[in-house]
Amino acid sequence: MKIIIDAMGGDLGPSEVIKGSLDAINELNIDIILVGNEDIIKNELKNYKDSHDRIEILNADDIITNDEDPSLAIRRKKNSSLVVGFNALVNGLGDGFLSAGSTGAILAGGIFIVKRIEGIHRAPLSVLYPTLRGFSLLLDAGANVDCKPEYLYQFALMGSIYMEKVMGKTSPTIGLLNIGSEKGKGNALSKEAYALLEESELNFIGNIEGRDLPAGTVDIVVTDGFAGNIALKLTEGVATSIFSLLKEELMKNFKTKFGAAILKPEFKNIKNRFDYREYGGAPLLGLKKPVVKAHGSSDAYAIKNGIKQLVKFVENDVIKIIQENIHIEK
Amino acid sequence: MKIIIDAMGGDLGPSEVIKGSLDAINELNIDIILVGNEDIIKNELKNYKDSHDRIEILNADDIITNDEDPSLAIRRKKNSSLVVGFNALVNGLGDGFLSAGSTGAILAGGIFIVKRIEGIHRAPLSVLYPTLRGFSLLLDAGANVDCKPEYLYQFALMGSIYMEKVMGKTSPTIGLLNIGSEKGKGNALSKEAYALLEESELNFIGNIEGRDLPAGTVDIVVTDGFAGNIALKLTEGVATSIFSLLKEELMKNFKTKFGAAILKPEFKNIKNRFDYREYGGAPLLGLKKPVVKAHGSSDAYAIKNGIKQLVKFVENDVIKIIQENIHIEK
Repeated sequence: MKIIIDAMGGDLGPSEVIKGSLDAINELNIDIILVGNEDIIKNELKNYKDSHDRIEILNADDIITNDEDPSLAIRRKKNSSLVVGFNALVNGLGDGFLSAGSTGAILAGGIFIVKRIEGIHRAPLSVLYPTLRGFSLLLDAGANVDCKPEYLYQFALMGSIYMEKVMGKTSPTIGLLNIGSEKGKGNALSKEAYALLEESELNFIGNIEGRDLPAGTVDIVVTDGFAGNIALKLTEGVATSIFSLLKEELMKNFKTKFGAAILKPEFKNIKNRFDYREYGGAPLLGLKKPVVKAHGSSDAYAIKNGIKQLVKFVENDVIKIIQENIHIEK
Repeated sequence: MKIIIDAMGGDLGPSEVIKGSLDAINELNIDIILVGNEDIIKNELKNYKDSHDRIEILNADDIITNDEDPSLAIRRKKNSSLVVGFNALVNGLGDGFLSAGSTGAILAGGIFIVKRIEGIHRAPLSVLYPTLRGFSLLLDAGANVDCKPEYLYQFALMGSIYMEKVMGKTSPTIGLLNIGSEKGKGNALSKEAYALLEESELNFIGNIEGRDLPAGTVDIVVTDGFAGNIALKLTEGVATSIFSLLKEELMKNFKTKFGAAILKPEFKNIKNRFDYREYGGAPLLGLKKPVVKAHGSSDAYAIKNGIKQLVKFVENDVIKIIQENIHIEK
């Protein structure tokens, strides 16, 4: 298996992406194509002795930043690491593609270059959302703000296949994010989506409320990209606020610092529960080839876990299964 | 001033509501009408010596529970404490009404019995949302799941008047809950609402994201009742999850219990920051008379604070100001 990596994407720069890629080669027995400025990549690789023979470099002198208009950048920057990487994927140079770059540009590149699977209306952004029970797949987390009921049904179908094949959940449960648990609750979109999900063969357990998300009531949370994006960023915000209040209180005086020192490992355990690095990355579902978006601030460990997830995405024929089921069910 | 209180609403029963009412009489120099079963109320009042002359009882033998269909219950249960209370308000027996009963039934009663101010399209549910800087007013928190841009504009206007007149914020800032901070982001509703808010005379500072809510970036957060309800319940859920993880970690062994004992006052400080009891209640804006919904699990202290808020709601002529501004601006 050969994986294409955008060596220039991510806030921490190429060194972490390249270190993570090398760790993945050793652990997963794969080949890797690093896409980006050849000089920079070669210079980074001098720090390592192993695995050089399993690495190819594909030169791309330009980069796309977070500040650029995603669609415009994808159309204009033909020599960016992102566009060169996507083209390499489409041309069959590798089996899957990972980038920690701009989310918008990765989505735009996925849709314009890799293209959607025939019959798929929209490609959602999917994220692994940490819960009290582990994690759930939340989709759409922000790609499609105005959705139709059929889109939500397809998100549920693709999420279900991904959670089963890649994350190893048997018959994963699906919940529709809504304002109440009873059938008949919600806005026009959720009422129609409920009906579609109910009559499908998916393991749909009904509506879930905001509080069910962190509780981990279901394996897959389906919603439109507007509510999903607000939910995702709000979760980060609430957690950050509580930890910052905690820090403020625990740094108040000698007594509190003493207590905090005793409990340091326990506080670390809690923070780790919210660590995106363990989960690797966000799959772009609905595209013709496997693409994973790693978190923007991914370090080498997070990159390696993202590649691990991408390898399972490829190995388990997720895209072929989606293609088969889309044609059967719609 | 005379305040009408639903003595039967709330999860903790009439004793807490009545105790809170008596505390409010002493602190605020007001008269109170308690609505509910006369025998139960009289029996409760035997526990107190003071203020009997400032209390009237309005008998209502029935109650509306959380499990009932709100609109149906309001139409059918004419002798419920909620319907009798609303009718007393409309007939001018008192200046404002407070209940800790079913949110849906209070909303339905407000709309069907008290009725909307002329020119107001929809009455939102408003909640005081705790933030790092104090609290923000979030509206709509769940009353209207399918909104039009004009509704959101009116929510902003009413919220602004309330925060200024009742909560004492000068020129309160308004943010539109969205998936990105830049203009032009979001779904069809948010783009149109943005335009309306931008051209208004309100202190609109633009879009805010999910993470800005707990940070307290703005005084008033405007959104439709679908996203608002999900945001509210998700916030509760994330906070509950983190506190439950914390509890689990800190009860692990002797060492952690020792550390937790040292930090007990600090943990309590953090929990207090999320205490709804301090904020009193949720105003129902857009109705012809002042109505406040107290939290379902309100104790006497929360009820007293809710009455305090209602008194300011009445004193500061919020409804008259809304009426004047609706006619001028639309």
